Amino acid sequence: MFENIKWLISPELSRECEEKEIVVSTRIRVARNIEGIPFELKMKTKDAEKLVQMVKSALEMNFKGKFLDLQKLKPLEKESLLESHLISPAIVKKELPTATFISEEGNISIMVNEEDHLRIQGLSCGLNLSNIASKVYEFEEILGQELGYAYNENYGFITSCPTNLGTGLRASVLLHLPGLVYTNEIEKILKSTFNLGMAVRGLYGEGSEIKGNLFQISNQHTLGFKEDELIEKITKFTKMLIDLELKARDVILNRARYELEDKIFRSLGILTSARLINSDEVLSLLSAIRLGIGLGLIKDIDIITLNEIMLVTRPGNIQLYYGEILEEQERDIRRADYIRHKLAKRNPASD
Amino acid sequence: MFENIKWLISPELSRECEEKEIVVSTRIRVARNIEGIPFELKMKTKDAEKLVQMVKSALEMNFKGKFLDLQKLKPLEKESLLESHLISPAIVKKELPTATFISEEGNISIMVNEEDHLRIQGLSCGLNLSNIASKVYEFEEILGQELGYAYNENYGFITSCPTNLGTGLRASVLLHLPGLVYTNEIEKILKSTFNLGMAVRGLYGEGSEIKGNLFQISNQHTLGFKEDELIEKITKFTKMLIDLELKARDVILNRARYELEDKIFRSLGILTSARLINSDEVLSLLSAIRLGIGLGLIKDIDIITLNEIMLVTRPGNIQLYYGEILEEQERDIRRADYIRHKLAKRNPASD
Repeated sequence: MFENIKWLISPELSRECEEKEIVVSTRIRVARNIEGIPFELKMKTKDAEKLVQMVKSALEMNFKGKFLDLQKLKPLEKESLLESHLISPAIVKKELPTATFISEEGNISIMVNEEDHLRIQGLSCGLNLSNIASKVYEFEEILGQELGYAYNENYGFITSCPTNLGTGLRASVLLHLPGLVYTNEIEKILKSTFNLGMAVRGLYGEGSEIKGNLFQISNQHTLGFKEDELIEKITKFTKMLIDLELKARDVILNRARYELEDKIFRSLGILTSARLINSDEVLSLLSAIRLGIGLGLIKDIDIITLNEIMLVTRPGNIQLYYGEILEEQERDIRRADYIRHKLAKRNPASD
Repeated sequence: MFENIKWLISPELSRECEEKEIVVSTRIRVARNIEGIPFELKMKTKDAEKLVQMVKSALEMNFKGKFLDLQKLKPLEKESLLESHLISPAIVKKELPTATFISEEGNISIMVNEEDHLRIQGLSCGLNLSNIASKVYEFEEILGQELGYAYNENYGFITSCPTNLGTGLRASVLLHLPGLVYTNEIEKILKSTFNLGMAVRGLYGEGSEIKGNLFQISNQHTLGFKEDELIEKITKFTKMLIDLELKARDVILNRARYELEDKIFRSLGILTSARLINSDEVLSLLSAIRLGIGLGLIKDIDIITLNEIMLVTRPGNIQLYYGEILEEQERDIRRADYIRHKLAKRNPASD
């Protein structure tokens, strides 16, 4: 089905974006339900089938992209969509018919019959919330006209879980904060995040571990705010975090410049030399290299290459990249191969 | 005094030598005492002064080289001679006048007033005991004619400590045995070594830790054997160890080829990328690279370069190399610099 892994890597992530070294990516999703179709808990198979058909027709009439019936995908393909943030763990677990649509540009994906009937999601590199939000609302509006959303004058859009009531909007930014981790300020900041109505998660959403110094910050509340306000709030908060991160990096450079440079260049040395490497170690090494690029210490690798390595080296994606089911050690070997060739033509010993 | 570190690196270690990947170096020393001069425990300052003068004259008449009065050397210079195995810890601790002579070729050194009046020592790369022994005995014979050795018909040459009685000969080989360490066979072998009348030490002699998988094997007994027998015995034993080491490497290649290759190339990646590195880590990384050369996995670095890095990166030598007294962190920085430039023009990412 996925003849080419490239297809999973949104061109959006390869564009030149603002603050792209600290803000890895930005995501927006809105939750919507269709009037007249039973919600999650009361839904029967025939309701789900009807929903998938309705959404499919509405999308095909209005947009270009791929519409994937998730029940027909192989486990590896689903794993790969998960790793690429194009579907959620919740939709994979569902027993009723589900589907996902991916727009031609790869930056919009729509899950059908996740917790809500529709989860319209936009992905962008860098700090780009307003732009990606307007693309998401393009889809949201047309689908609303075609399908009719469940709406209540007091609460706004009705969602399956009350935490999504109102705007149904969740905006999130994936931040790379090695400086704040190193100076131990991150704990304090995460607490303030929570107090400001924001949630912090790892790379793979709720309950996922923090890896590679990557923090996903998103709004917790969807009710009682306008969409613009929410986006402005999270944008401001992100800019404040960027400021704090840059200050933390200055502190480290003053206090422990050599130790930091050593860590960065050793990470590059290991990544370009390893013959066996697992995906978590890759995240951790990429974090050091990303920081090295941010500090201007590494000049011959770009962030786009790092983003691509980060995505392709995930356990599912690396198998898709080589077009084979691979055992764990084989994955570790191929992953190391892929990275070495991706970063070849460089000489990390030069300075 | 040591205007050029090169002077400390014996040209012997740069020659093409037999088995030079597993046998790093070979050393022979003979202990001799001069008839008519009090031995260590009864020696006075004026005896020591007389001894140093006698030996100096005898050497200057017969051989080319440097004669160094150890009391006049700076601590860093003594440290550097120690690291280069040209003097011993015991001679540095002595309060009476002491000296050392280093031959023009750098492969013969003679300590004056160590535990014995004379310790004539020869150093060679690879497994080369008979050759280096004949050079040592050239010096031993002429100095004996000039100075007259203390000798007893029943015991042979009289030494300060009875363990050196008889031949006064100690032969040692510095072996690189990562395979036997990896397969855990080394413990068993070290026990048999002891039973065969051999001693095992680390890189820096008696009581020194094993570092970088380097084992110094030497004979424990000097009495009751002829010189040739001792040399033959240790040569045979070394050849057996080489055989066992090669077999252990085959076992690892069969069992864990990828893990081994990964370790070797990561070590190379770290060594060519680090910005801070201590001398013990260098020994451990060099061990992996040395093994990589031995297995034919690394083809663009030679053993001679590794031997030079091993010597120059010791804490004293690195300061001498840069001609400055350096604090610990500065040493770690300069050491990393030196290695990176020494191994430059290589691309460890290539394969």
